[in-house]
Amino acid sequence: MIRISVDLMGGDHGPEMVVPGVAKALERHPDIRFTLFGLEPECAPILAKYPALAQASTFVACEVAVGMDDKPSQALRRGRYRSTMWRAIEAVKTDDADVCVSAGNTGALMAMSKFCLRTMANIERPAIAAIWPTLRGESIVLDVGATIGADAQQLIDYAMMGAAMARALFEIEKPTVGLLNIGVEEIKGQDEVKEAGRMIREAQMPSLDYYGFVEGNDLGKGTVDVVVTEGFVGNIALKTAEGTARQIAEYLRAAMSRTLMARIGYVFAKSAFNLLREKMDPGKVNGGVFLGLNGIVIKSHGGADAEGFAAAVDVGYDMARNGLKSKIEHDLNLFHNHRSTLVVPATDSSSN
Amino acid sequence: MIRISVDLMGGDHGPEMVVPGVAKALERHPDIRFTLFGLEPECAPILAKYPALAQASTFVACEVAVGMDDKPSQALRRGRYRSTMWRAIEAVKTDDADVCVSAGNTGALMAMSKFCLRTMANIERPAIAAIWPTLRGESIVLDVGATIGADAQQLIDYAMMGAAMARALFEIEKPTVGLLNIGVEEIKGQDEVKEAGRMIREAQMPSLDYYGFVEGNDLGKGTVDVVVTEGFVGNIALKTAEGTARQIAEYLRAAMSRTLMARIGYVFAKSAFNLLREKMDPGKVNGGVFLGLNGIVIKSHGGADAEGFAAAVDVGYDMARNGLKSKIEHDLNLFHNHRSTLVVPATDSSSN
Repeated sequence: MIRISVDLMGGDHGPEMVVPGVAKALERHPDIRFTLFGLEPECAPILAKYPALAQASTFVACEVAVGMDDKPSQALRRGRYRSTMWRAIEAVKTDDADVCVSAGNTGALMAMSKFCLRTMANIERPAIAAIWPTLRGESIVLDVGATIGADAQQLIDYAMMGAAMARALFEIEKPTVGLLNIGVEEIKGQDEVKEAGRMIREAQMPSLDYYGFVEGNDLGKGTVDVVVTEGFVGNIALKTAEGTARQIAEYLRAAMSRTLMARIGYVFAKSAFNLLREKMDPGKVNGGVFLGLNGIVIKSHGGADAEGFAAAVDVGYDMARNGLKSKIEHDLNLFHNHRSTLVVPATDSSSN
Repeated sequence: MIRISVDLMGGDHGPEMVVPGVAKALERHPDIRFTLFGLEPECAPILAKYPALAQASTFVACEVAVGMDDKPSQALRRGRYRSTMWRAIEAVKTDDADVCVSAGNTGALMAMSKFCLRTMANIERPAIAAIWPTLRGESIVLDVGATIGADAQQLIDYAMMGAAMARALFEIEKPTVGLLNIGVEEIKGQDEVKEAGRMIREAQMPSLDYYGFVEGNDLGKGTVDVVVTEGFVGNIALKTAEGTARQIAEYLRAAMSRTLMARIGYVFAKSAFNLLREKMDPGKVNGGVFLGLNGIVIKSHGGADAEGFAAAVDVGYDMARNGLKSKIEHDLNLFHNHRSTLVVPATDSSSN
């Protein structure tokens, strides 16, 4: 059994989208038990339409819903201890849930998650990991916007956390990891990235296979399982890719309706187009994973539909079932113990 | 008459691609006069096949060709004063050409251009501007990789140079300019970007219409005419968009050949697909423009075909015809004089 806490009030459409999404996820994974946090007047009538979900879940009525435009500080002031978002996160802290899923606003969700769950030992700052569709399947890209700026050590923490997530999600033993850069030569790029490259190569971590630098076009190719970058760059890369996908979909729509021949062609090729649309739909691969906290929180796209929210729940399910958190803790311990054994002799000799 | 100097030896295919590209551009713009720099044994037989081009151009035989993998320092050591790349750039400096076009390697071309032409007064660092296809037409995005990191003043320089380029290329009187960021609120983002936003808003420049922050997905939408960012981020955004376009083209190809019905549909819609391919082909919109130097240098994609190289020459032609360099100089002077009039009274009062 996997226990998932859900903030019903998040997203552009709130419980009308979230409840059917949760119901869909339950159909796929009947072993989930949900704790659902919502405002009763809005949620009760919708939940009544999903008896199977009602059976597999506990509803907890809350007082406050965090708004999609609330600033993080505002959300903390208004919603701490009593909002649906806070309570859903808290369920992870109190071990009433294995993972929390919310489509609420990213800034507020991250601020509350940090405040409530705190960062893991040895981790200074959390990261948001995105699941990126590629020509080879899927990759994990992080950080896509939790924090601006990262030094070499933080990039290495991201690499370890991303690799642990790849092991949990893709069930690969030793995922390949690349550092996002503007060239593949060792001499190019930001100092932090070059330094991280040197450190990660030297550390020879058993949990990952360091590939080297990758460039922007490697993201879509799926050159590596895990792409590591600082949050500003990662966020812009993610949104640029989403924007490009939408742009091409628009070109395609226009091209297909331009001539009679093209419209006839469209009718013949309709099922192929539907398949393509599914591949290109950012909502199908949904679920940013907050990494580096004492608990797993999944952020669904605010604009996701029920299918998209269900995909985010699926991600949470896989993360919990495959023990993501303990995998990360294990790798971090290994790395930091290894570092301290490297450091100790030097300290000893200086004290002699 | 527009005078263009061309490095025939650049690109993955050298003169075999560049010469036909130049010939194509001449067909479109019979008022161009070319100075062509190449190694004689390789270029002479190819040039002999294009008599109209031979008539409209002067061939200058050189001793050295810069390799596509040469490091900038290597290229400067081996090729300064005597390579085809250097001599083509130098023709702009000696006013034998209005603009230089090369498909040679970016690092070497930028290093030589900086060394030979020097940066403009008031400009610390050059930028590479890309022409980005959008749903609304085209935008200019800079810097896409000339320099890593930029402070607020440098971002403002980029904004002015990009706006001048938009005026020259799109013939818009007051282009809209946005700063690339990870959110549209004033409180979000890198400090340099926030500071640049404040400064540019206060400066109320007559040459551009400051829009505010834009995000990665605004690139494809064409929200603004000019998107300003630091070179690391710009390069990754550019390559991510190119990679996503290729990825979707691959999905499309696979989807269209999957079933018999889809293949029939493809036949009917073939001309629409060709149109789409043209829109999605990064080679069609070719020509990175080096801005901030005492002369205009256009970088063509190394992998471009003849049509792509011709497009890069077209960009150079438009830049020269519309007086890009003097537009930039004019705007920079206006801005820096305006700043000094703001500063002078304060200095005066302190000396009294």
